[in-house]
Amino acid sequence: MARTNSNYDKLAAGYLFPEITRRTDLFLENNPDVTLMKLGIGNTTEPLTPSVIRGLHEGVDRLAHVETYTGYTVNYGDVPIRKAISGYYQKLGVTADINEIFVSDGAKPDSGNIQSIFCTDSIVAVQDPAYPVYVDTNVIAGRTGAFIPETRQYERMVYMPCHEENGFFPALPEQKVDLIYICSPNNPTGTVATRSQLEAFIRYAIANKAVIVFDAAYAAFIQDPGLPRSIYEIEDAKKCAIEINSFSKMAGFTGVRLGWTVVPMDLVTENAASGKVNRMWERRMNTFFNGPSNIVQLGGIAALSDQGQRECRQLVDYYMNNARIIRDGLTEIGLKVYGGKNAPYVWLKTPSQMTSWAFFDKLLEETHVVGTPGSGFGPSGEGFFRLSAFGHTEDISKAVRNIKENLRL
Amino acid sequence: MARTNSNYDKLAAGYLFPEITRRTDLFLENNPDVTLMKLGIGNTTEPLTPSVIRGLHEGVDRLAHVETYTGYTVNYGDVPIRKAISGYYQKLGVTADINEIFVSDGAKPDSGNIQSIFCTDSIVAVQDPAYPVYVDTNVIAGRTGAFIPETRQYERMVYMPCHEENGFFPALPEQKVDLIYICSPNNPTGTVATRSQLEAFIRYAIANKAVIVFDAAYAAFIQDPGLPRSIYEIEDAKKCAIEINSFSKMAGFTGVRLGWTVVPMDLVTENAASGKVNRMWERRMNTFFNGPSNIVQLGGIAALSDQGQRECRQLVDYYMNNARIIRDGLTEIGLKVYGGKNAPYVWLKTPSQMTSWAFFDKLLEETHVVGTPGSGFGPSGEGFFRLSAFGHTEDISKAVRNIKENLRL
Repeated sequence: MARTNSNYDKLAAGYLFPEITRRTDLFLENNPDVTLMKLGIGNTTEPLTPSVIRGLHEGVDRLAHVETYTGYTVNYGDVPIRKAISGYYQKLGVTADINEIFVSDGAKPDSGNIQSIFCTDSIVAVQDPAYPVYVDTNVIAGRTGAFIPETRQYERMVYMPCHEENGFFPALPEQKVDLIYICSPNNPTGTVATRSQLEAFIRYAIANKAVIVFDAAYAAFIQDPGLPRSIYEIEDAKKCAIEINSFSKMAGFTGVRLGWTVVPMDLVTENAASGKVNRMWERRMNTFFNGPSNIVQLGGIAALSDQGQRECRQLVDYYMNNARIIRDGLTEIGLKVYGGKNAPYVWLKTPSQMTSWAFFDKLLEETHVVGTPGSGFGPSGEGFFRLSAFGHTEDISKAVRNIKENLRL
Repeated sequence: MARTNSNYDKLAAGYLFPEITRRTDLFLENNPDVTLMKLGIGNTTEPLTPSVIRGLHEGVDRLAHVETYTGYTVNYGDVPIRKAISGYYQKLGVTADINEIFVSDGAKPDSGNIQSIFCTDSIVAVQDPAYPVYVDTNVIAGRTGAFIPETRQYERMVYMPCHEENGFFPALPEQKVDLIYICSPNNPTGTVATRSQLEAFIRYAIANKAVIVFDAAYAAFIQDPGLPRSIYEIEDAKKCAIEINSFSKMAGFTGVRLGWTVVPMDLVTENAASGKVNRMWERRMNTFFNGPSNIVQLGGIAALSDQGQRECRQLVDYYMNNARIIRDGLTEIGLKVYGGKNAPYVWLKTPSQMTSWAFFDKLLEETHVVGTPGSGFGPSGEGFFRLSAFGHTEDISKAVRNIKENLRL
């Protein structure tokens, strides 16, 4: 008598983005002549750069000829792409051996799957608000109790509030926790953790033999040279931190699919000596995965070449100019905004203490702009709203103009 | 105090294929002048077909221009690829709605992840021998007890022996089980389940509200028109069976990465009414996955076009000719062989009751041919050996010649 995984029943609501789609589609049904401006999902809009396109075409061409055709790659990426990623770290002054680098089809699958190599009764701490994948995958794996509607939190999950008062970076957990998810530059708040903030978490993790899952998917957007782009820039991070990163936003690979995870040899846990967690993740990749597409790997290598990185920086500059336009426009009409300086997300405080979803509906109806309700990222996101800088500049400008002209404050 | 998932410690040995690589590398270290002939891993060797190459280039070109660039796809594949797969089923006389089709980066991830939507105390039945992913992923998820060295079985896992006496298709389980993995055409035995054999399992599954996970990754290799290519060709299968399939072997996508899973709306379990399991898998894809590469999706659509299918059939014919060469050659020297008629794998009985690994070493040393030990697929695989028909015909012919000339029987 097969029974399904009942943890799925605990999931509080539809995954945030499908719910946005649902409300948006409903609005369009009732207002068929309206053209919406979507600043919701952080989806790239600008074409891949010339180097990457050449790399991808080469990847396809290789498969057209018997002399260069390849089948299965290494289950966590071939040596050349791992060497290229190792080189990426070298430029940050960080040593990451190719045996510590596991290449996948993206940061989302990795940040979803990483919990599976830890035991089911692990106590998990997340920044609140946080990228929903960290929470939902741990709910599905059974590491939480029920969802409590009053607090809008799952039992057993430790929420680390990020709010205006602490500059959207949390205090250390008061209790002992096992797994800590930190996303910097942060999705959704657009805040970047400083060196000293990360140092404190690393000290905590080492003292408590906890593991930090550091999501650096937006590292390429950091403009301030004093802010760390990798947690491994901080001493001792390799003893306690797993880092996840992606080509999605850095190189426009959201649809192309390529990411990576670093599991350092030095990482230890209560029951795992040096090297073991690394081998467990290798085993997981060997068992559940068959490597990222060989075509896509060549695109990734091109993106990490010197010329590729110069081109990617132009892509990043393009989106960061959008972020500036959003920040400036909203500030002008008196809205309070955060983020958007070292991250492609602007985190705005809803006016008149509106709820996030009420502001979503208001923005949609009055200005035809689709954004993302902050409360969808956790209870401390309530009263905030995320606007994404991913989009064509003319569309972003038009959206900001529409907000300025039509939002009734 | 983070602790790792201790189920990993139960895993009996290295994953089969890395262990083969280890032994092979060791042999090459000691015999640096030898050129090995690899008939081990089922890895495609022939270039992609012209239609597919055109589709993939078009996929890349679309990303080079702002007018045609796309970011995230639907998390389980865009409508066109799902429509193409729906069309694939239509040609088999099977109805599969696009809402029942979930496209992924391959059959291996899907066959590894599918268990996660079922509860942890499910009783799992596997064909013995079986593709190791079915077993290992359930071990990691905690559905088994320890590995018992004497029986070479995991506690709690139900092994359904496949041997010469039953034509390598198992009897129904004697006890009630919840999840049943069936692979047809079978990896590793090369056997194809008949309609009546599947009918019996479907009747069992419906009577016991069990779920069949049907892995059809090798369906394209079936030559006999009387054998089912999809479990849904059998009445009532949609009430109890999930089907997984792949472009890997059919179209040479092993390195390109594309597969799919069908979760029928009619599928029910003890605690899930019609539609629920389908929505759970959708939720899983939304939470853990971000869609297969948009480039690769266009390659898949090209492979499923009429012209693409004609080209794919030539690819399949090429490998099936290899299978015939292996079968004929081995039969000639008195070895007993199975499979290889409707599947790209030949399953040979080791001579003189040798163990599978002893035959692996013997074949490697005497003939420089690398195959796959049957025991690596489960205890009933002991005394058998898998040879793969994936390879260049000249290499396959040379390997068979070498075996005929140098294997000391």
